[in-house]
Amino acid sequence: MAKGKGITSRAEDYSQWYNELVIKAGLAEHSAVRGCMVIKPYGFAIWEKMKSVLDGRFKATGHQNAAFPLFIPKSFLSKEAAHVEGFAKECAVVTHYRLMNDPNGGGVIVDPDAKLEEELIVRPTSETIIWSTYKNWIQSYRDLPLLINQWANVVRWEMRTRLFLRTAEFFWQEGHTAHATKQEAVDETLLILDEYANFMENYIAIPVIKGFKSENERFAGADDTYTCEALMQDGKALQMGTSHFLGQNFAKAFEVQYQTKEGGLEHVWATSWGVSTRMMGALVMAHSDDEGLVLPPKLAPIHIVIIPIINKKTIDRMDEMDAVVEKIKSELGDDITVKYDNDEGKRSGFKFAEYELKGVPIRIAIGPRDLDNGVVEVARRDTKQKMSFSLENIGEQLHNLLDDIQENIFNKAKDYRDSHITKVDNFEDFKEVLETKGGFVLAHWDGTSETEKQIKELSKATIRCIPLDAELEEGRCVLTGNPSKQRVLFAKAY
Amino acid sequence: MAKGKGITSRAEDYSQWYNELVIKAGLAEHSAVRGCMVIKPYGFAIWEKMKSVLDGRFKATGHQNAAFPLFIPKSFLSKEAAHVEGFAKECAVVTHYRLMNDPNGGGVIVDPDAKLEEELIVRPTSETIIWSTYKNWIQSYRDLPLLINQWANVVRWEMRTRLFLRTAEFFWQEGHTAHATKQEAVDETLLILDEYANFMENYIAIPVIKGFKSENERFAGADDTYTCEALMQDGKALQMGTSHFLGQNFAKAFEVQYQTKEGGLEHVWATSWGVSTRMMGALVMAHSDDEGLVLPPKLAPIHIVIIPIINKKTIDRMDEMDAVVEKIKSELGDDITVKYDNDEGKRSGFKFAEYELKGVPIRIAIGPRDLDNGVVEVARRDTKQKMSFSLENIGEQLHNLLDDIQENIFNKAKDYRDSHITKVDNFEDFKEVLETKGGFVLAHWDGTSETEKQIKELSKATIRCIPLDAELEEGRCVLTGNPSKQRVLFAKAY
Repeated sequence: MAKGKGITSRAEDYSQWYNELVIKAGLAEHSAVRGCMVIKPYGFAIWEKMKSVLDGRFKATGHQNAAFPLFIPKSFLSKEAAHVEGFAKECAVVTHYRLMNDPNGGGVIVDPDAKLEEELIVRPTSETIIWSTYKNWIQSYRDLPLLINQWANVVRWEMRTRLFLRTAEFFWQEGHTAHATKQEAVDETLLILDEYANFMENYIAIPVIKGFKSENERFAGADDTYTCEALMQDGKALQMGTSHFLGQNFAKAFEVQYQTKEGGLEHVWATSWGVSTRMMGALVMAHSDDEGLVLPPKLAPIHIVIIPIINKKTIDRMDEMDAVVEKIKSELGDDITVKYDNDEGKRSGFKFAEYELKGVPIRIAIGPRDLDNGVVEVARRDTKQKMSFSLENIGEQLHNLLDDIQENIFNKAKDYRDSHITKVDNFEDFKEVLETKGGFVLAHWDGTSETEKQIKELSKATIRCIPLDAELEEGRCVLTGNPSKQRVLFAKAY
Repeated sequence: MAKGKGITSRAEDYSQWYNELVIKAGLAEHSAVRGCMVIKPYGFAIWEKMKSVLDGRFKATGHQNAAFPLFIPKSFLSKEAAHVEGFAKECAVVTHYRLMNDPNGGGVIVDPDAKLEEELIVRPTSETIIWSTYKNWIQSYRDLPLLINQWANVVRWEMRTRLFLRTAEFFWQEGHTAHATKQEAVDETLLILDEYANFMENYIAIPVIKGFKSENERFAGADDTYTCEALMQDGKALQMGTSHFLGQNFAKAFEVQYQTKEGGLEHVWATSWGVSTRMMGALVMAHSDDEGLVLPPKLAPIHIVIIPIINKKTIDRMDEMDAVVEKIKSELGDDITVKYDNDEGKRSGFKFAEYELKGVPIRIAIGPRDLDNGVVEVARRDTKQKMSFSLENIGEQLHNLLDDIQENIFNKAKDYRDSHITKVDNFEDFKEVLETKGGFVLAHWDGTSETEKQIKELSKATIRCIPLDAELEEGRCVLTGNPSKQRVLFAKAY
């Protein structure tokens, strides 16, 4: 157990540590509905910050928000052959539209007369319903590009769920764009991949490797799936977000054609891309410690908590305390959220532990000697380092410290990640590294799905991606010895 | 037909005018799924502005956002007796969690082996799932008040749907609060009612009458339902939003008790409150005209459109045009959204009509003589008045004009509403007013549900509310002649 918090330590059981931390820090919990979570206010405040930043970037790059139906007619899923294989299986199916009083008493039952002619699927993703809509929106090259995003809830009936990482209902944004040319669609796919990677690195403070998926791991219905892959503290990889080049697959399935400038008729090119509440899970797993959350300042709902040390020596000096707090707040400006916890009913030690658990980046304590000396005690959550700040210029010092914490959290994650990318050249080492050190393994692969599946069976590792920035290098497949032109990135993954 | 836009006029067929306008102005359309709408980017941009303002007000008054599951176990609905009567009937029922390939070929079918033990209802409203959660969150008076809101989609299986006004899936916010005392809960209910009314009047520019509902019209499960009622241009009323005092009904149904300061155990007091995409329908119906939308500046996605008159005389002066536009933009600041439509492929007359249809509050046209004289032609959408503005001080003039338009749109709606509140004292007049003049009718009512139902049958009018600010006045029920202590507000309603 971690000291005092009642949380299992990472060393003891990483998975258990995660589950307990998410709940105890007030981020989310399981609901009465199997596999569906409740996102609690503190967790939702972080998600809102993520949404706000991403939404701003989508708009800055020309995208508009819209809303498409929650339900998809069953037959729509079947229109794209690969898509139905990937998504029609585990999903919530609406079959009836009415309940009735149970004639035998005791509650309500499904009204057998209210059966839908065609069942509706609660959307697992919206390509089909959106492309059936785009058919009416796109006639001419003048209607293109069409750059649309929606923030939505989706449902995939997962058998084994974990808060944020894999839930039946989850929240995400899904972009769906339509283009006149293949090149434009590919460019859009990569533009969004870059936006995702920038957000993950600069806000969530998690370094990611950009690459594309092997055929096995591609989105069902895509010609190419690009991904951002990150490493968690237990050495397992997590897919943070994906951007898909859909070719003309959905345009063909839903007969979406446009008149070209020259008067011809062409199928439209498509992309789709999404990031979800799964990023909340990554945020927790990448940075937090046995004492609780460690939040990067750019996503923290509370940046600074100020705790006055209330005791016999200070109880008559609360006005001075309040004045110090006012000075700090006024120097920080509106962008920084400060919580002043002067609740006399709780001990300072209890408060310290509580805000550590919540991952508040900076804690300021004010004691009697601090008042005398015109200083405050500042503790940073990431390194637990304590220091004394003069009240002069306190705003600037705190701003700088927040920047420093943001940077340090990223650098720490990057150091860990970089030291956990291992090149291996034979299958013994491959398995050995995965079983002992963990992390990413860079290895040669012969490019076949069959080999990939075999490797997965033998090692539980999958190809996370074929990195975009990988150097070409002649080699031999780590399993079959067949020739390979570049290393790809393997890992055990969430 | 309205000139050139292809929209039915209000006089011809108000209902048809509305349907066509919503679609042609690009706000929303019907989807492939019966009763579910697609909110298009232009419509969604307005909804986002509504959300942003309301969300800010909820937070300013101490509320936090969270997310609760989309699904509700069937048995939950039955736990509150009145609630199940009101909500368990027309709803989307999930009975299965898997599809399978049809063994007879041709697509997918529901897997009969994947039947849920208990059916799930797609939430029509979330009191039951939220109160089942609050049971774990509330133990002591220290946990109260609990002030939570969620922005969500909900589903009510409506047989007759209309875009925004009544759709199977719609978008809303639902606040759910828990309090230690009855008075606190009542105060919360009324605080939110005021927030709603302020938003409707100051942003949507629609005057509302605040009041409470008769027992017949109350939310299923509430002790009291407060409402904001507005009048549309066809003389029909529209319920804009409601705030419910739920008493201890849900606390009792879900056994939510708290320990008082004194050590006793009490059931918690509750409120819930919501406004939805229905407000989008009200916005359209209250202000728009036969030429298209009329948007209040505070909710308009584009505040000002600038259209250069492109012809032989100006085609060589486009640089001057651009400079004028830059000057205007820089003087307006970031809060004002300006669209510069210099597309040479479209005639100015076509553009004028398009932005009229879209309800852009101010149109600026720049012709060759305007360039010579250092002026622009300014046309306001609400009154269609045209004027010439000097480029000197153009920012301030436009800001003032936007304020004036906002105010004028509200005043126009208020004048109409005020002139359509008619006091009547017998049932002949009651019916006569409703059938000819329309609008609200203030009449005495004996306070019984039976009379209310009879009046509805005879006149199609319902009690919209018992106004909060009504004067006490002795009188006789307009139908039964029984004694009454105050007039109540009747109308035919959406």
